[in-house]
Order: sequence, then C-alpha cells, then structure tokens
Amino acid sequence: MNSAPPPFGPGGEFDLIRHFLEGVPPPPASVRVAAGDDAAVLDGGWVLSTDLSIEDVHFRRSWLDDREIGYRACAAALSDLAAMAADATGVFVSLAVPRGGAVDAEAVMAGVREAGAELGAALLGGDSSRSPGPLMLDVVALGRADWPVLRNGAEPGDDLWVTGALGASAAAVHAWREGREPSEAARRSFARPTPRLAEACFLAERELVDAMIDLSDGLAGDAGHLAAASGVRIEIEAALVPVASTALEEFGAEDALRAALHGGEDYELCFVTDPDVLDAADFERRMGTAVTRVGRVKEGSGVWIVRDGLAPERAADGGYDHFEEGGA
Amino acid sequence: MNSAPPPFGPGGEFDLIRHFLEGVPPPPASVRVAAGDDAAVLDGGWVLSTDLSIEDVHFRRSWLDDREIGYRACAAALSDLAAMAADATGVFVSLAVPRGGAVDAEAVMAGVREAGAELGAALLGGDSSRSPGPLMLDVVALGRADWPVLRNGAEPGDDLWVTGALGASAAAVHAWREGREPSEAARRSFARPTPRLAEACFLAERELVDAMIDLSDGLAGDAGHLAAASGVRIEIEAALVPVASTALEEFGAEDALRAALHGGEDYELCFVTDPDVLDAADFERRMGTAVTRVGRVKEGSGVWIVRDGLAPERAADGGYDHFEEGGA
Repeated sequence: MNSAPPPFGPGGEFDLIRHFLEGVPPPPASVRVAAGDDAAVLDGGWVLSTDLSIEDVHFRRSWLDDREIGYRACAAALSDLAAMAADATGVFVSLAVPRGGAVDAEAVMAGVREAGAELGAALLGGDSSRSPGPLMLDVVALGRADWPVLRNGAEPGDDLWVTGALGASAAAVHAWREGREPSEAARRSFARPTPRLAEACFLAERELVDAMIDLSDGLAGDAGHLAAASGVRIEIEAALVPVASTALEEFGAEDALRAALHGGEDYELCFVTDPDVLDAADFERRMGTAVTRVGRVKEGSGVWIVRDGLAPERAADGGYDHFEEGGA
Repeated sequence: MNSAPPPFGPGGEFDLIRHFLEGVPPPPASVRVAAGDDAAVLDGGWVLSTDLSIEDVHFRRSWLDDREIGYRACAAALSDLAAMAADATGVFVSLAVPRGGAVDAEAVMAGVREAGAELGAALLGGDSSRSPGPLMLDVVALGRADWPVLRNGAEPGDDLWVTGALGASAAAVHAWREGREPSEAARRSFARPTPRLAEACFLAERELVDAMIDLSDGLAGDAGHLAAASGVRIEIEAALVPVASTALEEFGAEDALRAALHGGEDYELCFVTDPDVLDAADFERRMGTAVTRVGRVKEGSGVWIVRDGLAPERAADGGYDHFEEGGA
C-alpha cells in the first residue's frame, strides 16, 4: 500500500514483502489470486502460502523445545490456509539447521509432522541446509478451496467477528521476556497454536463470510488489512474484544486489551458477515470454538477503536512487528 | 533411500530432507508426485519445488552483489522446474535480511524479478523477516507440466545426456576460495546460471526423454539419483563428459573432470533417451545449447565411471555437499 521505502518502517515485516510486490506485472491468468491476500489461489482451487519461522525473531530456543518449534512453524503456516477457508493438503519445509548438534532436526520435523497430521497436511517435500546462524524454517502450506474467502469482501453494515480469545500468545512472550515461565494456557497458545481450518470451512460452506484473515499481526493490524483490501472503515468496540483470561492475569485489563489488539500471533480468525446472519451460540456448539462480534464495518478507511463515551480513536498502523521489537 | 541416521552424513543436504520424508504417509491422490523427485506434481499439472539459498553456505556476499544473489537464488529454484520439463509460472520468495543495512533487500529482489522475468516466472508472493544471522532466501518455484518428466524412467539400453558444459561454477568457487577473481565465464556461470527450461520442454514435447534431473549436485551425484529412482546402473564415459574450458583453465584436465562430476551447481540438464533418437546437432541448432551423450544405462545399480582401458570405477556416493565442505 505504501509506495516508497522504507520497507523496514512500522509494520516492517508485512510491508517488506508487500513493498516488493508493488508494480510487479499481473500474474498469468492461471493464478487467480496472487500475493496481497493471505495466500495465492491457482487454477484448480489450489491455495498456496509461505511462512518463515526464524530463531530469535519468531521464537527463542530457550522458550520452546525443538518439537514445539516445528509444530508452531507448521501450524502458523497452515493458519494462512484457514484465512482463505481452504482445506489443508500438505506442507513443504525448507529447514536450515545450525551446525554442532544443538538443534535436533529430527525433533523439529517430528513437530512439523505432528501439526500436519492433526490438521490434515502431509509432508510433501522441501529443502534443507546447514545454517551458519539461526535455526530457520520456511513452511509452504498447500491446500484447496472451491470458494476461497479473500480480504476484499467487507461492506459497510457488515459485522466484524473473531474466533477464540486473544492475547494469550503475547502473554507468554511477555512472561518469558521478564524471565518467568508463562502460564500453561499462555505457553500452549504460543507453542501449539490451533489454526481454525474447520471453523473457516464451516463459515465458507454456509456462505456466511464476506471477508476473512487470520490473526498474526494482532486484531487491529489484521483488521487494517481487511479494511485496506475492502476499501472500508472498521470499528472495533473495545468492550466486546474477547481477551484471554491468561492475558488478563499477565497484563491487567488495559494492557491485556492492548495485547489483544496489537499482540499478534493468536492465529484466530477475523472475518466479516452480513449483519445478524451468524448465530454465535450455534457456531460454538457445533465447532467447540467461541465466536464473538467485536465491531462493525462502515464507510471510510482505517481501523478505529470505540470505547464507551469517547470519540473513536484511530488504531496505530501495523501490529506485531518483529523488526521494531527487536525480535522474539 | 537410506533408512537410518545420520542425516548429516555424505550427501548430507540431499539426504537430510530425503531422510525426513521416509515413512511419511502417502500424499492424497490430488498430489500426483510428492517429494523424492525434483518437484511435486499436483492435480491440474501444477509443479512445485522449494530451494534454499543461504549466505556462507550457498554463496558468499564477498563473491556476489546483492542483485546477483537474488538472481542466482531464483534461477536455481527454477532449474527444478526444468528438471520436470515444466513451464515456469511464478515464484514465492521468503527473504530473511540481516539487520543493519549491509544487504540491500531491494537489490536482492530486483535480481529475483530479473531472473523470473527472463524465464517467464512472475513474483507471486512470499514472506519476509529480519535475520539475526545470514541473508537467507527460500524460493518456491511454481510451474506447469502436462507431461512432467520424472527421475524413474531410465531403462537399460538408454543413452545418458547432458546439456551445456560442466565445471564452470565449481571453477568460480575454487578461484574465490584461493583469493582470486574467477574468469568472467566462470563467474557468470555461478552468479547468473541459466536453467534449461526451454530445452527441457523441447525434449518433453517430442517425447524424447525418459527420465531427467537438473545438475545441482554434480553429474555423478545427480546421475546417482536417476539410477536409484529408476533401479538401474548408469555408466558415464569420462572421455565424453563436456568440461567447460574455464574449468580446464582453472583446474587442469584431471581435476576439471572431477569438478564436472562432483562440483555441482551447473544447473544443466541430465537426461536419458532411447538409444539413437536424439539428433544432437539438430538440438543445438534449434536451442542454441549443446547436448552431449556422456554414457549409457545398464542393468544393475549405482553410477560407474568408465575410462579407456580401465575397469569401470564406482563413483563415490553424493555430490557437492554443503555440509561436508563447510559451505561456500
């Protein structure tokens, strides 16, 4: 969206690849949707996305064991398929392993296979190398969607929803950074996230959802991607945002809300529907996953936070930013 | 093919990913060919492969400028499509950039786009991050093949061929390692390799080729992959191997042959045909690329080097090995 350097500015990670994709020629017709959405869509309904997981940027090895590192990298990559309402087919894993045996590559790949098996994704291939520095995984998620859900379908009047509860992953990172072990719930949210593939397909099959994204940058940042792609304004009602109880315990109420809005890496779904078409109680009963209306789509642009009795406040651009925060 | 650790043994890079793919459940039917060949083949004829390029493993920044790093990474990835006789559609690039501005990410991506544009591949997406260590690219090459050529079609009696001349890339690395600037021809072979996409499609369309691979591990190592996948013995006639003149200058005749057999990263095609069906002069006239018969397929297993008047000698397993050699 921005047209000039610096690619390393606020929202750096997202903007960097977006920046490079500006001005590239349109893809061939066999590529129905190219970059700019959560994943590319090919003829035949194939859906394809890539996701980097780098030591000391996306995780620390003192936080996770090797199997969890693989699990998390695979689950995070598959979350991009959920954002498109795609079924998972498989993953390709490019793995760069530090020399010297400190990392058990077998355990990393066992974690990849475990996450893939739970979510229906076979290990299909990849590449490997030693790394002269950090452990690095790049996971290509491959899936299929007959009716992929894009980011650009939000319309004024639509409802904005999220699945699950937010901020638990940020709570885990916060605890680790302060030298404490996070709560089991927070740790699990970071180490073994659950991409919402089944929930997304449920919504798409019933034609309930007009636009969707997965929460990797924080609710404010990711809603901003929906708003920008759809050309609309999104208002988030602060009092409605479902904050994870472990985030409330870690941060207190005000900072927990900030973690939910900007903390990132919850891998929940954020989506819009026509007003009053989604029965939240029925969804939760069928899927075992909560869904909460958190705001509304309006005419305009940007993401705005609405608090009782106050004028709407424009959310800062960008969400969780590995560049700005100096990494995990 | 090997059934046990160590994944970091001889042929380490190749064996590591192969090792992890052992025992994984078969892919769903919509994946026609999964890992183990140069690329996966999906329903609809989509062909997909990933290729890592890591600083101080696959290249050094003192050898290449940033644009060349991107060009080389993209060209190397597209060579896997050539190996399948696929047309290039596009690439996804995951890019991890060291902090501090030493690497010009714009220039790296300009090189990726340049290689892609020359070979028909659009930039379709990717991911990006800062890197706490080396510059890293993982390039996903996406293409299409109505009739993908696999590694497993070689039969006793077939002829073995290579395109181009071998050893120039190894000559460049050898010169750099000795602190000299390589010849322009050697440097170009390493910095701007030319994957043989058009040549591969020419061969496949005429149904001339029974099995094919691209040369990334060296002729002996890659012919070994063909032999293993096809269940045959491959004999390479040393006197027939086309050695690049710059490799002869750099190494002398005997070591230049070794570079051609084991030096790696030539990104030429190695393929087998029925005997006497390929008119090399006609191929070269049409394609502008030399093609040379270098051996023959027999019953048995392994790759054997044949020299005049001597008993065939079994080629050492594995080819160019980033793990063993300590990197670029």
